[in-house]
Amino acid sequence: MVDIATRVYNHKWKIDPIVRSLIDTDFYKLLMCQSIFRNKPDTTVTFSLINRSKSIRLAELIDEGELREQLDHVQSLSLSRGESTWLRGNTFYGKRQMFRPDFMEWFEGMRLPDYHLEKRDGQYELTFEGTWPEVMLWEIPALAVLMELRGRAVLNDMKKFELQVLYARAMTKLWKKVEALRSVENLRIADFGTRRRHSYLWQDWCVQAMMEGLGEKFVGTSNCRIAMQHDIEAIGTNAHELPMVYSALAENDAALAQAPYQVLSDWQQEHDGMLRVMLPDTYGTQGFLDRAPAWLNEWTGIRIDSGDPAMGAETAINWWKSRGEDPREKLVIFSDGLDVEKIRELNAQFQGRVRVSFGWGTLLTNDFRGLVPNDALSPFSMVCKAVKANGKPTVKLSDNPNKAMGPDDEIARYKRVFQVGAQHAQKVIV
Amino acid sequence: MVDIATRVYNHKWKIDPIVRSLIDTDFYKLLMCQSIFRNKPDTTVTFSLINRSKSIRLAELIDEGELREQLDHVQSLSLSRGESTWLRGNTFYGKRQMFRPDFMEWFEGMRLPDYHLEKRDGQYELTFEGTWPEVMLWEIPALAVLMELRGRAVLNDMKKFELQVLYARAMTKLWKKVEALRSVENLRIADFGTRRRHSYLWQDWCVQAMMEGLGEKFVGTSNCRIAMQHDIEAIGTNAHELPMVYSALAENDAALAQAPYQVLSDWQQEHDGMLRVMLPDTYGTQGFLDRAPAWLNEWTGIRIDSGDPAMGAETAINWWKSRGEDPREKLVIFSDGLDVEKIRELNAQFQGRVRVSFGWGTLLTNDFRGLVPNDALSPFSMVCKAVKANGKPTVKLSDNPNKAMGPDDEIARYKRVFQVGAQHAQKVIV
Repeated sequence: MVDIATRVYNHKWKIDPIVRSLIDTDFYKLLMCQSIFRNKPDTTVTFSLINRSKSIRLAELIDEGELREQLDHVQSLSLSRGESTWLRGNTFYGKRQMFRPDFMEWFEGMRLPDYHLEKRDGQYELTFEGTWPEVMLWEIPALAVLMELRGRAVLNDMKKFELQVLYARAMTKLWKKVEALRSVENLRIADFGTRRRHSYLWQDWCVQAMMEGLGEKFVGTSNCRIAMQHDIEAIGTNAHELPMVYSALAENDAALAQAPYQVLSDWQQEHDGMLRVMLPDTYGTQGFLDRAPAWLNEWTGIRIDSGDPAMGAETAINWWKSRGEDPREKLVIFSDGLDVEKIRELNAQFQGRVRVSFGWGTLLTNDFRGLVPNDALSPFSMVCKAVKANGKPTVKLSDNPNKAMGPDDEIARYKRVFQVGAQHAQKVIV
Repeated sequence: MVDIATRVYNHKWKIDPIVRSLIDTDFYKLLMCQSIFRNKPDTTVTFSLINRSKSIRLAELIDEGELREQLDHVQSLSLSRGESTWLRGNTFYGKRQMFRPDFMEWFEGMRLPDYHLEKRDGQYELTFEGTWPEVMLWEIPALAVLMELRGRAVLNDMKKFELQVLYARAMTKLWKKVEALRSVENLRIADFGTRRRHSYLWQDWCVQAMMEGLGEKFVGTSNCRIAMQHDIEAIGTNAHELPMVYSALAENDAALAQAPYQVLSDWQQEHDGMLRVMLPDTYGTQGFLDRAPAWLNEWTGIRIDSGDPAMGAETAINWWKSRGEDPREKLVIFSDGLDVEKIRELNAQFQGRVRVSFGWGTLLTNDFRGLVPNDALSPFSMVCKAVKANGKPTVKLSDNPNKAMGPDDEIARYKRVFQVGAQHAQKVIV
């Protein structure tokens, strides 16, 4: 029996919205947002969408009108009562009231600021300008909208059973990964795949498949909406935008050199345990650790997000040892370019030497490689980054020069200030 | 939104019925039923379920109570008004009123006769006795019920996403076959998979996938219910039960030798064109053709259902030539143990030499091989055959001694009467 009312209601939607909730975003965005709301609420920041995969000509694939409709819809969203209740009432990492009442009150009234969209050379120039705590919340929905619209453009030409078989193949592919991971001992893995997911519904399916297939080994998702839906743990800590903006705001080289530590000093005022995880690669991991103040020795862990991951973990272990810490009590989170083989390999290599955890992103929620002709649905490398803060450009170096960002002269200056030597270039997959 | 009424209604069913319609059966059963209704309405026939795959111990896998519930449900079915309208109003093979009014009136009032069920040695002994036109309609639902209950016993232990991935894998597998067949030129293929299907819903999915994926190359389904549902052609001609029962009824050896031709003589009184397709292998193809009366020369085609299919087709082609017929105007239907490779091979081999068509059965609608541990869902060889007619045993020889049926002394007699020499044994897959 068709539920007539449901059918009529569904046909009333003018569009099929890609992002339907303000908390359909990564948990760490909200954690960082609260920190920024307290420490740098008035900073003006520009976020910009950057498609690193130039061969994917987004402006030719995606209709501008549809893109605007989706972005307009995102802008119309506000925190729902149930979402607010969940954020206020939930226990994150064993801590109640992770989100302070003043922040929640602000968040409930928050609307995303305007976007600026232009076509140039087959690509979209999509930028967001506003106060940092507001504008930073555009990052994830903007990426999700672009990625899903590109997918829809391809799916649009497919017939009914072709579509069903496409998803059947994607499910088969993912389940094979789940089965391969099931036998990995002491595995701890989370979904980090919101930003470059194939679609919301697909990410939701992947998370549920991981829940059933991996049981305790699956520790949660970075996506708040999906965590809420299935009553599982929301996972995340902090990202490059914090040191990037803090650094851009630094008045001189001495302040610049201290900026990344200032970020973590602000951070540790409200967080402990699993949330005291540093991301050391923004301006080179080795230098960051060499110059780290003593109070960072006690932090729980390190997230490895660029460069060779095994090398990064060895660097972290050696650093903890050099600081008199026992690495076996420390946590390493791998989150860059992961797939099953790499996960198995890293888990085996560091078992017993350090606590290991994985934040599995694009190849969990968007591995449509090889499923349609010309690989038209394979994921690509797109980011949405803070590029300016109070009018000054931001810079990211990372441990992989292919991931570097910023004006050349500023990159040179940062390399000098942070004493970054030769770097090993690695192909950016996703 | 959940449609509450639908949900409540669905929960009112005591069982989930496997066969929900009397026309969820093969089209040729109805064609034969009408012929029998006219020519041999009072013959008492016993049908018996025979599981050739002794290692599948059905009585240990399937609960007797559940089996009885399903069989009782089949017995409760009667032709619905819509089904009757479809049978009366449809054009089959270009002919209107294929089913005569007197037959339709009888069919509308028909209920399936009683079944007899016992457990013996890990197997079910399931027999049906009654007048031939009634009892013969048990064959397909009985097979479908047993096959699906065995599947359900396996599926019962699987979790939600495991189940979804199982069907995703089955879809992926079938679609790969569809894609492989798409490039076969001049292909004509039909679904013959009702009797050993995985389930009704799965057969229905397979048919729809073939419709979309193969377009004009897919010529129809043997399943009347599914043909009606999707407004496609119902396909079929006649089966072994006709010569088997006619032969059992023969009073002496001379009458026995004529019985298979008597079947076709009765048949051609009402059918022409695509329905004049003979099944020559019941007592050996070569002998059947050698002794065939001249009026069979004009028949449209031959269905090859046992033995080496290429050899069978060569035999048919040579026979037509020897009778002065042009094989390029004749039809060969392959229907035994087909899968993609065999279909491609046979189609290529006989292209331009004879018109070729395929009736694809078990490996279309039940290829779950390799999809669960221990291959617990792979199809197996089960038949439901007429074993007695008016108290006398039936015999089938076929072109493969592994498919022979009947008491030893009767087999010897039939081999003598039909002058069957040495036969080549072939493994029965499904």
